[in-house]
Amino acid sequence: MGEAFGVWPMGNDNTLMKLISSANIACGFHAGDATIMRKTAQMAIKYNVAIGAHPAFPDLQGFGRRNMQLPPQEIYDICIYQIGAMFCTAKALGGKLHHIKPHGALYNMAAKDAVLAKAIAEAAKAINPDLVFYGLSGSHLISEAEKIGLKTASEVFADRTYQNDGSLTPRTQSNALIESPQEAVNQVIMMIEKQCVISTDGNEVPLKADTVCIHGDGNHAVQFVEELRNALLSRNVFIKTIL
Amino acid sequence: MGEAFGVWPMGNDNTLMKLISSANIACGFHAGDATIMRKTAQMAIKYNVAIGAHPAFPDLQGFGRRNMQLPPQEIYDICIYQIGAMFCTAKALGGKLHHIKPHGALYNMAAKDAVLAKAIAEAAKAINPDLVFYGLSGSHLISEAEKIGLKTASEVFADRTYQNDGSLTPRTQSNALIESPQEAVNQVIMMIEKQCVISTDGNEVPLKADTVCIHGDGNHAVQFVEELRNALLSRNVFIKTIL
Amino acid sequence: MGEAFGVWPMGNDNTLMKLISSANIACGFHAGDATIMRKTAQMAIKYNVAIGAHPAFPDLQGFGRRNMQLPPQEIYDICIYQIGAMFCTAKALGGKLHHIKPHGALYNMAAKDAVLAKAIAEAAKAINPDLVFYGLSGSHLISEAEKIGLKTASEVFADRTYQNDGSLTPRTQSNALIESPQEAVNQVIMMIEKQCVISTDGNEVPLKADTVCIHGDGNHAVQFVEELRNALLSRNVFIKTIL
Amino acid sequence: MGEAFGVWPMGNDNTLMKLISSANIACGFHAGDATIMRKTAQMAIKYNVAIGAHPAFPDLQGFGRRNMQLPPQEIYDICIYQIGAMFCTAKALGGKLHHIKPHGALYNMAAKDAVLAKAIAEAAKAINPDLVFYGLSGSHLISEAEKIGLKTASEVFADRTYQNDGSLTPRTQSNALIESPQEAVNQVIMMIEKQCVISTDGNEVPLKADTVCIHGDGNHAVQFVEELRNALLSRNVFIKTIL
Repeated sequence: MGEAFGVWPMGNDNTLMKLISSANIACGFHAGDATIMRKTAQMAIKYNVAIGAHPAFPDLQGFGRRNMQLPPQEIYDICIYQIGAMFCTAKALGGKLHHIKPHGALYNMAAKDAVLAKAIAEAAKAINPDLVFYGLSGSHLISEAEKIGLKTASEVFADRTYQNDGSLTPRTQSNALIESPQEAVNQVIMMIEKQCVISTDGNEVPLKADTVCIHGDGNHAVQFVEELRNALLSRNVFIKTIL
Repeated sequence: MGEAFGVWPMGNDNTLMKLISSANIACGFHAGDATIMRKTAQMAIKYNVAIGAHPAFPDLQGFGRRNMQLPPQEIYDICIYQIGAMFCTAKALGGKLHHIKPHGALYNMAAKDAVLAKAIAEAAKAINPDLVFYGLSGSHLISEAEKIGLKTASEVFADRTYQNDGSLTPRTQSNALIESPQEAVNQVIMMIEKQCVISTDGNEVPLKADTVCIHGDGNHAVQFVEELRNALLSRNVFIKTIL
Repeated sequence: MGEAFGVWPMGNDNTLMKLISSANIACGFHAGDATIMRKTAQMAIKYNVAIGAHPAFPDLQGFGRRNMQLPPQEIYDICIYQIGAMFCTAKALGGKLHHIKPHGALYNMAAKDAVLAKAIAEAAKAINPDLVFYGLSGSHLISEAEKIGLKTASEVFADRTYQNDGSLTPRTQSNALIESPQEAVNQVIMMIEKQCVISTDGNEVPLKADTVCIHGDGNHAVQFVEELRNALLSRNVFIKTIL
Repeated sequence: MGEAFGVWPMGNDNTLMKLISSANIACGFHAGDATIMRKTAQMAIKYNVAIGAHPAFPDLQGFGRRNMQLPPQEIYDICIYQIGAMFCTAKALGGKLHHIKPHGALYNMAAKDAVLAKAIAEAAKAINPDLVFYGLSGSHLISEAEKIGLKTASEVFADRTYQNDGSLTPRTQSNALIESPQEAVNQVIMMIEKQCVISTDGNEVPLKADTVCIHGDGNHAVQFVEELRNALLSRNVFIKTIL
């Protein structure tokens, strides 16, 4: 959330904020700016949503989605900088930074690269060892964060299909996305209740599901979140912040 | 200090850091970047120098020296962001942010504008009410920070001449600068010992002098600081961090 | 036009482009980027719309609307850079740069400051003396461009009220904007047919009207342009590119 | 050249400009800004040095040396933008853009990737089909530019060792650099006179050598260029712009 920039709006933060339990807020490198960060954190505090820092590569034009080759030490440094800005934005409002989740290309690269994952996790820990570390379920993000003693939240995706090894089907493949909201809801329910997912090959793949990623910028984001929320609540799955 | 950027070096931070008691470290908006901030803060911790955030307008190309018209709320926001990044850079190293001093055009504009000065001071206070607020002696920066209960450090300049009202002679005037190192040293000693300065008109002007501004990027910066330091020590004026 | 940036859209360029005769295209400093510039210029060529460069202060976050103090030489330089990028974007597509209009704070500051206006006009001339220079009717932008021999287009505003001296009523005043589309259309018709406008004081103020500024980003931009267009056409006022 | 930025200087452009025949001038994405581009082009014109555009990834902090994944169309677009800005900077001074050479990571990636090389070459051609295209000798940069009919200049390096396939020894290997100025001079002479180089394995590898790359920012850049220049002149090899 908070992925507007300057005069350019994005997403439905206002509405979505009432429906979720934790928000990943852009920190100015791929989106967001100091003013938007403050406003988004204020909104999160108002609706009792856990505030997360969403650090990214320094790539505003590419929305942090373009791979960049940075040495692990520089990855660490830009994470300290961005998490730090968010940490104090929350602090200045009387709030509290709760978690951190890397964004876009940084998230995807670090999911597959233990050295990058460790650099990001070390940055989070150096700022506050109580921060919860959000990362792709089953990836290096989770294992590296756990190795250094951080609490983690294994993230799953409602609208993406999975491979036999628990990785996401790459977007370059035609079956990468789940278009039907109902199927997406069903996948989430299975991941939460059974802690597994059916791969594109039809296999049952075990998977840890602590948090479900919802993108704030889609056309039907709000409607889908409402459906998912109702489906979960009707099965007595409650949406809560990880403590 | 820390006013390098990317591959471009600046100043003699390595040498100067041994000679001073507090450092104002660029926060990435007018100079510095996440990596340089970390390295500079590490150096400050090593030499027991108090770490200060040096927030500025978002103007890398102009080094934060070009006036920009931002609403006070946005000034507040960019200060939270920059001070926050520095706060956590120090925290992550096991250090501590000690003070804050606005940079360049932001400093000069806020010195003359109570509303801007208040916005910056409020940002510092929101992050940590124990931060010391550095500003031009006798200016709105000091009075606004005091009004909201911050500790302040009144800053004086060794190499700038003063007007009858205690303001600096504008750089556009030919007698704005003190070229002779000896005269500059003498002015500092007078400001500290007598808490006054002789204006360009020859008048004795009262002035509070808690901290002396030294620019890290001049050709003779190191030599001048050494001379000033020796002159002060020989008169039993000790250089210490403001607590 | 072309005031999107990266992933962030803006305006209704696609629709508006069919309704106008000349487009001012952002050059990457306040909005736009290399890809958006190309796409917008392609669209202009497709609909036979004259391509204009819309240079601005380097202030993406502030959309070029925040005053910045730059020396005239640097104003000249950033105009060469931006107009140059647009010039070759059009050239590479087999098109042609037709005019130039400064944006936002640069436009407003230069309208009142002959030195800035001259710097911008000189940049346009140095790139191509045949470029048409768009500026606020009656302002320094027009007079300085004329002094150095550029063709000019005096710009008027449909939805802004005017003062007795021909300047726009500042936005800080409550009667700055004309809310009613019908009144706005009437004002434009009067400005074109009688080359004058009725000031907020009720006086008839002479005014040159070569081009009417339409903002592409308002909610009702398309509808208003259609109304204005129809009203003009019904009075045999044709919308044509200035040659 | 022109790789300063804002207040941060770099290199010895002033001295080097008298010793070379063609200059690759940074275009603001990895270094340089509008003012520095103008000053550097003015200097080139003064010393009759051919002006080249040196486009790069949008990565000021990383000096364009960090790999970034951009689609070929976006590579094309950022090249049009940067070459365009340089084209008109030269034009506005009464000069002329002569060539184009991609910088840093863009150069290295495109040398090995025909699709990227083609995108850059197409951008150069779209702006002016008479531009000379500088690229690593024997690489995709040269072959793709030739395929679309551009004149090319095959570039060789004085201080880098070569592999059996004509590629540069990667900087990660200990024998990548030639430290001795005399050896570097000898390598250049051999490359020019015999159009071959001795690889690190001791083999004679054929190579086209139209232009020798000199970095402007090393400590001994000026001295080395003078030595190389004298060595070449003493063997009746003249340093001339490629026409």
